[in-house]
Amino acid sequence: MKKHYLMTPGPTPVPDESLLAQAAPMIHHRAPAYTKILLRVIENLKYVFRTEQDIIIFASSGTGSMESAVVNLFSKGEKVIVVSTGNFGERWVQISDAFGLEVVKLQYDWGERSNIKDIKRIFDENPDAKGMLVTHAETSTGVVNDIKAMAQLTKGKDTVLVVDSVSGLGACELKMDEWGIDVVVSGSQKALMAPPGLAFVSLSDKAWKFVEKSDLPKYYWDYKKYRLALQKASPQSPFTPAISTMLALGKSLQMIKDEGMENVWERHKFLAKAIREAAKAIGLELFAPDDDRANSVTAIKAPEGIDGQEIVKIMREKHGITIAGGQSKVMGKIFRIGHCGYYGKFDILQTVSALEMVLKELGLNINEGAGVGAAARVLKNLND
Amino acid sequence: MKKHYLMTPGPTPVPDESLLAQAAPMIHHRAPAYTKILLRVIENLKYVFRTEQDIIIFASSGTGSMESAVVNLFSKGEKVIVVSTGNFGERWVQISDAFGLEVVKLQYDWGERSNIKDIKRIFDENPDAKGMLVTHAETSTGVVNDIKAMAQLTKGKDTVLVVDSVSGLGACELKMDEWGIDVVVSGSQKALMAPPGLAFVSLSDKAWKFVEKSDLPKYYWDYKKYRLALQKASPQSPFTPAISTMLALGKSLQMIKDEGMENVWERHKFLAKAIREAAKAIGLELFAPDDDRANSVTAIKAPEGIDGQEIVKIMREKHGITIAGGQSKVMGKIFRIGHCGYYGKFDILQTVSALEMVLKELGLNINEGAGVGAAARVLKNLND
Repeated sequence: MKKHYLMTPGPTPVPDESLLAQAAPMIHHRAPAYTKILLRVIENLKYVFRTEQDIIIFASSGTGSMESAVVNLFSKGEKVIVVSTGNFGERWVQISDAFGLEVVKLQYDWGERSNIKDIKRIFDENPDAKGMLVTHAETSTGVVNDIKAMAQLTKGKDTVLVVDSVSGLGACELKMDEWGIDVVVSGSQKALMAPPGLAFVSLSDKAWKFVEKSDLPKYYWDYKKYRLALQKASPQSPFTPAISTMLALGKSLQMIKDEGMENVWERHKFLAKAIREAAKAIGLELFAPDDDRANSVTAIKAPEGIDGQEIVKIMREKHGITIAGGQSKVMGKIFRIGHCGYYGKFDILQTVSALEMVLKELGLNINEGAGVGAAARVLKNLND
Repeated sequence: MKKHYLMTPGPTPVPDESLLAQAAPMIHHRAPAYTKILLRVIENLKYVFRTEQDIIIFASSGTGSMESAVVNLFSKGEKVIVVSTGNFGERWVQISDAFGLEVVKLQYDWGERSNIKDIKRIFDENPDAKGMLVTHAETSTGVVNDIKAMAQLTKGKDTVLVVDSVSGLGACELKMDEWGIDVVVSGSQKALMAPPGLAFVSLSDKAWKFVEKSDLPKYYWDYKKYRLALQKASPQSPFTPAISTMLALGKSLQMIKDEGMENVWERHKFLAKAIREAAKAIGLELFAPDDDRANSVTAIKAPEGIDGQEIVKIMREKHGITIAGGQSKVMGKIFRIGHCGYYGKFDILQTVSALEMVLKELGLNINEGAGVGAAARVLKNLND
């Protein structure tokens, strides 16, 4: 027997209650029973997004909601600034390129955080940019960017701030309305503790004005179709929704609401800090700065002479713990431990313990138990 | 206590085994365990599509796969012929319009089947059409079009036949390779007996050549990204797949394979015939011709002076049976009973019985029991 643990930054473990919610009999998406489910999910997503605006729900993965923002907000040839701190910043560039936008890219080294002074300068140089496309939590590097400060820059300007918070939302503080974010896109399979297959977007009043002017071609992603369907006497989706996944999401969102958003953020802070302290105690180097915002995933450099993919493989095959390797240009150089979503203190402890075993097995002379000790000292103060 | 029955043409009932398959612990989509699931699902979808070509799987609803065909196969301003026999024919028109194609529309009255002579004539008049976009089973009217004959027209021509078989596939005979269909798009929530949230597409070699030349903007739907991901050493999806729904689909596809595709088609023929005979015995008029191809859904005219939506409402509220009303311009004029997917003979019998009760309650002077009798006489010959 080997027990299996999922410690990746998406998909993340789904609570049994939510997995089992999917076993309910199928219902029709135009019948009243589905409207009830839809409205409750939207209400609870608004709670998580910290917004009074409506939420549009797609049957798609998170990338779909990113594409939806590009094709609904802009017109061909318009300029957007992309702040790229890793793989998902690159995705904004690729999507914008694919749809014929002019991209001004502010590129950071992977593992580096964006800097608000740089962003202000590039925005000053490009006041005609219609959008600023940014990543909240950059899953590929563990960096969390300062969205609140960015929102200060775009406020009152003819530029929308569009935030990919697929892996940030629910793990790292984000307050859409209070901070003045124009567009937040996200997905079901990270901190929201549901299976993958649902993506979300919420828009400010200012962003809806951009939607009116956009000329990029769209059909499936057309926000107006979703808004219209929500305004019907029996609110619904324009296209058949992912009903079983909606049931799981409904259950998970209720758990988040019961815990309380601030408590959920606080828990993620503790889990992340425990991992960082453990890594340092083991003698490992963090890939991103030791930052109390980086609460969804921790990227750690593979020790000199050791392939990060090898650590991932042994963790999974020998110890049953699935973590993630480095993506793209940092493949092999880092490994990543996800802790956004349905994680408690002992999930962290066991992962650190396995990591110590693996490093020892790979011939590293580490102080066994130093990591778990450091993690435990942080975790004991978590009120859960 | 009231038992509930889903008799809509999508979503359709999902077998308990498949619903429960979704309760399995979440796994990571880049780990070997997911590759195994993906490959088995693709293998079984190929069996259902009757093709040796690969299958691309999207996290989306069926409409997403329709859009994917338009944006991957064509270039701006190119001409396509749309054969429209109802609401989903209209969807081809709307999507093609949205992406700037020139649409030549062959329009039939709702409830009418397309005629191969008309299609040949319009194709002769428009030999420069790059695509012929058609509907296999038109869910809005119950009509099933003659795809085999259409494929004869486009074979060897510089025109791809693109078939929306979202509600046809698995219920009505379709042989992609043998018939020479270039593109088939479909979804999980109809005859494939899985929850909604997954969409599929398969392309002939000829269609892949169109993909190479297409200049319409795309990212999430980009077929090349999916093909590339399938060609990796560990085949996978480019974006996070809808994992729980994939597990349900895997189970349902196995059930289809165990029953055997020909047997599944045969079962649908019996179920559909039973409904049609019952309707006639009750004294109702079919909306579409009495056609032994129309095996996924049956549309029936509401009797003179009775609102079809009222029949739907009473069926659901009083008898626990959810059927579908008419869409768009036939709303209120017809009602539709779905029978594609996980249906056996007694599902039909109880629906006919409830229908008789409702019509009686609405004041119609019908011969009670005539419908169930007629249905039973058909169903007794079904080898299940």
